[in-house]
Amino acid sequence: MVEHDIVFRIRTVQVPGTLGRALENVARFGANIGGIETVLTTHEFNVRELTVIAPTAESVSDIRAALAATDGVEVISQHDGVFHVHHGGKIEVRPTVEVRTIRDVRAVYTPGVARVSQAIADDVSRANDLTWKGNTVAVVTDGSRVLGLGDVGPEAALPVMEGKALFYSMLVGINAVPIVLGVHEPADIIAVVKAIAPGFGGIHLEDIASPGVYRVEDELKEALDIPVMHDDQHGTAVVVLAGVLSAARKSNRSLDELVLGQVGLGAAGSAIASLALGFPFARVLAFDPVADAGARMASVGHDHADRLEILGGGEGFGEVVKRSDVLIMTSGKAGLLSAPDVRAGSIVFALSNPVPEIDRREALAAGAAVAADGSIVNNVLAYPGLFKGAMMSGSSSISFAMKLAAAECLAELAGEELLPNPLDTAVHSAVAAAVSAAAGAP
Amino acid sequence: MVEHDIVFRIRTVQVPGTLGRALENVARFGANIGGIETVLTTHEFNVRELTVIAPTAESVSDIRAALAATDGVEVISQHDGVFHVHHGGKIEVRPTVEVRTIRDVRAVYTPGVARVSQAIADDVSRANDLTWKGNTVAVVTDGSRVLGLGDVGPEAALPVMEGKALFYSMLVGINAVPIVLGVHEPADIIAVVKAIAPGFGGIHLEDIASPGVYRVEDELKEALDIPVMHDDQHGTAVVVLAGVLSAARKSNRSLDELVLGQVGLGAAGSAIASLALGFPFARVLAFDPVADAGARMASVGHDHADRLEILGGGEGFGEVVKRSDVLIMTSGKAGLLSAPDVRAGSIVFALSNPVPEIDRREALAAGAAVAADGSIVNNVLAYPGLFKGAMMSGSSSISFAMKLAAAECLAELAGEELLPNPLDTAVHSAVAAAVSAAAGAP
Repeated sequence: MVEHDIVFRIRTVQVPGTLGRALENVARFGANIGGIETVLTTHEFNVRELTVIAPTAESVSDIRAALAATDGVEVISQHDGVFHVHHGGKIEVRPTVEVRTIRDVRAVYTPGVARVSQAIADDVSRANDLTWKGNTVAVVTDGSRVLGLGDVGPEAALPVMEGKALFYSMLVGINAVPIVLGVHEPADIIAVVKAIAPGFGGIHLEDIASPGVYRVEDELKEALDIPVMHDDQHGTAVVVLAGVLSAARKSNRSLDELVLGQVGLGAAGSAIASLALGFPFARVLAFDPVADAGARMASVGHDHADRLEILGGGEGFGEVVKRSDVLIMTSGKAGLLSAPDVRAGSIVFALSNPVPEIDRREALAAGAAVAADGSIVNNVLAYPGLFKGAMMSGSSSISFAMKLAAAECLAELAGEELLPNPLDTAVHSAVAAAVSAAAGAP
Repeated sequence: MVEHDIVFRIRTVQVPGTLGRALENVARFGANIGGIETVLTTHEFNVRELTVIAPTAESVSDIRAALAATDGVEVISQHDGVFHVHHGGKIEVRPTVEVRTIRDVRAVYTPGVARVSQAIADDVSRANDLTWKGNTVAVVTDGSRVLGLGDVGPEAALPVMEGKALFYSMLVGINAVPIVLGVHEPADIIAVVKAIAPGFGGIHLEDIASPGVYRVEDELKEALDIPVMHDDQHGTAVVVLAGVLSAARKSNRSLDELVLGQVGLGAAGSAIASLALGFPFARVLAFDPVADAGARMASVGHDHADRLEILGGGEGFGEVVKRSDVLIMTSGKAGLLSAPDVRAGSIVFALSNPVPEIDRREALAAGAAVAADGSIVNNVLAYPGLFKGAMMSGSSSISFAMKLAAAECLAELAGEELLPNPLDTAVHSAVAAAVSAAAGAP
């Protein structure tokens, strides 16, 4: 259930108890109060902005009516808190240098800048420290697979890319620029990204539909000498594996005694199974009812293919569930797993959104040692540190070893929880350092 | 002459008079002091950063030696001030909203952002206020004609584009993103810009070689529903015309009694002649020794072609000089105009860089009423207000009328000078308002 933050601007008479009665009336609808800000105070009345967390979209009009019916309270206006925070966008471009005099202008612009341009023309690698390039990532999408919304197009994808960019800046100090594309053919996306790549130190691919995105990522990695990563695959895989490592630790299980089963081999699922092979699980089972998905899995199963088993067909799902100590599901099928099939003591990650394969409380009640759903898998935990680590080490790619290092680091920092707090910048610095250290490994 | 800002880090003993002696020694080489910052103070010594404006690159080592030879002074290190200010780039991407809690994350990112994406998917125009698009410009180049350096490539063009972006933010609060392209064919540049256009509210083309850039600009204006402008043409033309209007006012001449002559019909020159036709000059003479350049001019001479005269061939230059009350030269030819040919009482703009067609003091001595060189034509005066005005009025293009309005506004604000101070944000607000008001006109 997604709550709705509604901001009501209300006028209350200066009579003790008025605001309290208003809040009581709101509470009757199961709504929490997010915050109260006083905008104006006079001898007769106060104007306040009251943020109400409505339990459903439908309850908003009831809450407004209840506020308006409160003695001494008038509702002036209301707005949706989520839309309010998006007004004008969530990021901006700002100067990092102060320009106060014409002398300053002559340093940052002509004629001074010509010497800097000439220095880069003479040695193109100097762009990494004489421009923002070395610390700047393009967050690229064509809007063909945005969140759970599907193919909504580039403009509708922009708020999501701005969100990614906001966290890049806030968490690791990387400049990220949303690039939303009006082209959708893999060849066209590849051509555009190659063309704009000289101005960026990394390419973050996001919310591009598979299977096209596989070709886009593969060819860009091959063509460019800067890190390229499809976050929906690898960012997700890093966070999920971190959660699994953390869960195994909490249930005192050693990875080499565990069979990990991955159900669903879409972009995220195949990346999870692939990354899992880098850890010493006894065996990795990968299942998808669609035969093609397994074929892609086989091609990315690489060095550790002796421990990988790809299953398909009608019986496959039941077999994976029966054999897996760690069961990860990215099937897109709500309620796929029924409680009686949950293995006692197993680790269950039911990651489909908005409704998981099994409710986590139900899984725990059915005997799972650890159960989690999609709400714990926040990609914000992985991509900032992955790119920061790659870029600070001057690496031209984000290798398998760097992703393993990120997952291990996140698991170590989890503490009492399955995963660390994504808003803790120290976590991201640690991930960046771990990734950077792993950059030398193959 | 371009001065060299050199920052010397020096250690001086705590003996009164030491710093003074050091400064005297520096002054002997004709160097000015840009600033002195104290980094560290102890009982025995001070560490300071001394910015010295060296008259030539060659004098820097002499100045360093003189500092080091001063009693009680040790030079710890030195760096080039221009390079120093470029370190790490001149712009950054920052959040505009504060994210402190997981609740905030759920508003700016999933799941809240999905509602915003859906709203834009339902009505794509809402991207203008629910994302940064409506206030964001792509500054696009392929690095094929950067300043006076020529074809230095996309990375070397990046510091120049960052400079443009810095002023966009500082002067009119527009987000500008440098996009430097690794492709150079007009068709490829057009394809890439069209592909990335959904994320931007304007396209600023910069430092792309002509004649290719004409096709790029024409086709993008046709294809896109957001303002597209090649700054080297139109930004320059607006600033030059503003300077001419201002010069005419200062010499008490009415435009309809003046013949304006434009020598050199490259990107800037043809745009200057074209924009001049929008003002009531008695006649506009346009000359270029290359026949093709005149052909392009004829195609942009539009409505006012009855007052336009295109001249070519060997005699053309002399004729233009003889007949012009306002002579504007963008020929690229140093010293093209000799003093005896300057008409008494004329307005002479010799705009070629780094060496003009005639030294402005020489032109004044020869009888010109007003004379200016390229150093006064700062595009920073025009492009921020042009784009801000176009974007705030929701205009899908920057029309001829909007450029005229910008030039008139700048001339009005010039005061005692030929042009206003480019760092005065009030000037840019006024230009934006004038451009916005003109957006309704044809």
